[in-house]
Amino acid sequence: MATKAEKTREYILQASYPLFAKNGFKQVTMKDVCEATNLSRGGLYSHFPGTAELFQELLKTVSVKDAMDFDREMEKGSSAAVILENALTQMEEEMKRPQDSLSVAIYEYAETVDGSVLMQYNSDAVRRWSELIRYGMKRGEFREVDIDEIVNMILFSYQGIRMWSRIIQVKPETVRAIMSHIRKELIKR
Amino acid sequence: MATKAEKTREYILQASYPLFAKNGFKQVTMKDVCEATNLSRGGLYSHFPGTAELFQELLKTVSVKDAMDFDREMEKGSSAAVILENALTQMEEEMKRPQDSLSVAIYEYAETVDGSVLMQYNSDAVRRWSELIRYGMKRGEFREVDIDEIVNMILFSYQGIRMWSRIIQVKPETVRAIMSHIRKELIKR
Repeated sequence: MATKAEKTREYILQASYPLFAKNGFKQVTMKDVCEATNLSRGGLYSHFPGTAELFQELLKTVSVKDAMDFDREMEKGSSAAVILENALTQMEEEMKRPQDSLSVAIYEYAETVDGSVLMQYNSDAVRRWSELIRYGMKRGEFREVDIDEIVNMILFSYQGIRMWSRIIQVKPETVRAIMSHIRKELIKR
Repeated sequence: MATKAEKTREYILQASYPLFAKNGFKQVTMKDVCEATNLSRGGLYSHFPGTAELFQELLKTVSVKDAMDFDREMEKGSSAAVILENALTQMEEEMKRPQDSLSVAIYEYAETVDGSVLMQYNSDAVRRWSELIRYGMKRGEFREVDIDEIVNMILFSYQGIRMWSRIIQVKPETVRAIMSHIRKELIKR
């Protein structure tokens, strides 16, 4: 069972997510987090020494959550096509809600604090997607593609949209077009 | 023949490009531009009232230059495969030199001054690429693809890489993988 300290920590992470999503990393202060959580300065600082540590922890939570989906589904022996479809649906939903995206915050964090965090984030995603595609090919559900090419295309077009959609209104058709391209590349007809 | 004023204007644009590429839009001041150009404040302000106007003009120059390449080549009846190859080579070169990219500056400009500039930039690129692909299909050089899907995949994966490569070292193989994917999608084997 989670201790009180763990629960508070979890609560801080949840409450600060929208702050970072909305304002990026640089503009968020510990004072903002105090206000969003209704914690005292002392209360907050006893959990996180600063926004950098808080944000780093937040990133871990987000990427572990994502990672679990693929791995767990593959272990269960789920259909690769279904796992892909769920992932694309989730990506499509995320791309439609740019205000909820941590993309800009991650970018600013990497720029101002630590770039290695972004490299880790990227190589985790590459690993997960590569495994899924290998799995789908092995099961005969996916076409025999060049894994590296497809994975990079998926990840960078997703990131491109995430960044741009913070600034311009990216039409739902545009997002759908990219999802459809990925689907066609992978799924055997 | 270009007047002296036009030449100075051109010179200011050239000299300020690396400033914006290196520092983004927000951090560049008219004072920085004065220093980079060795112009007096009065001299500079007689050409541009501020960095926003200067940057907007710079964007026009960049995108017109790009735009001319495709259109002119298609008018000349050049091979679509050759035009594509040249474009991909240029993109690959650009992706390898993130420090020369205006991506971050464009992003910051759109965020702080005017988002419509980015929409225009994007729709120009969509138009140009769509025309090239249509041209290649008509000439029987390109496969019959879904133009919308391919164009969006090309543009957003390119933008994704451009942004990320400012922060992390994107490997040349990664860039090459995406270029290779685009090539395979379009060129008939």
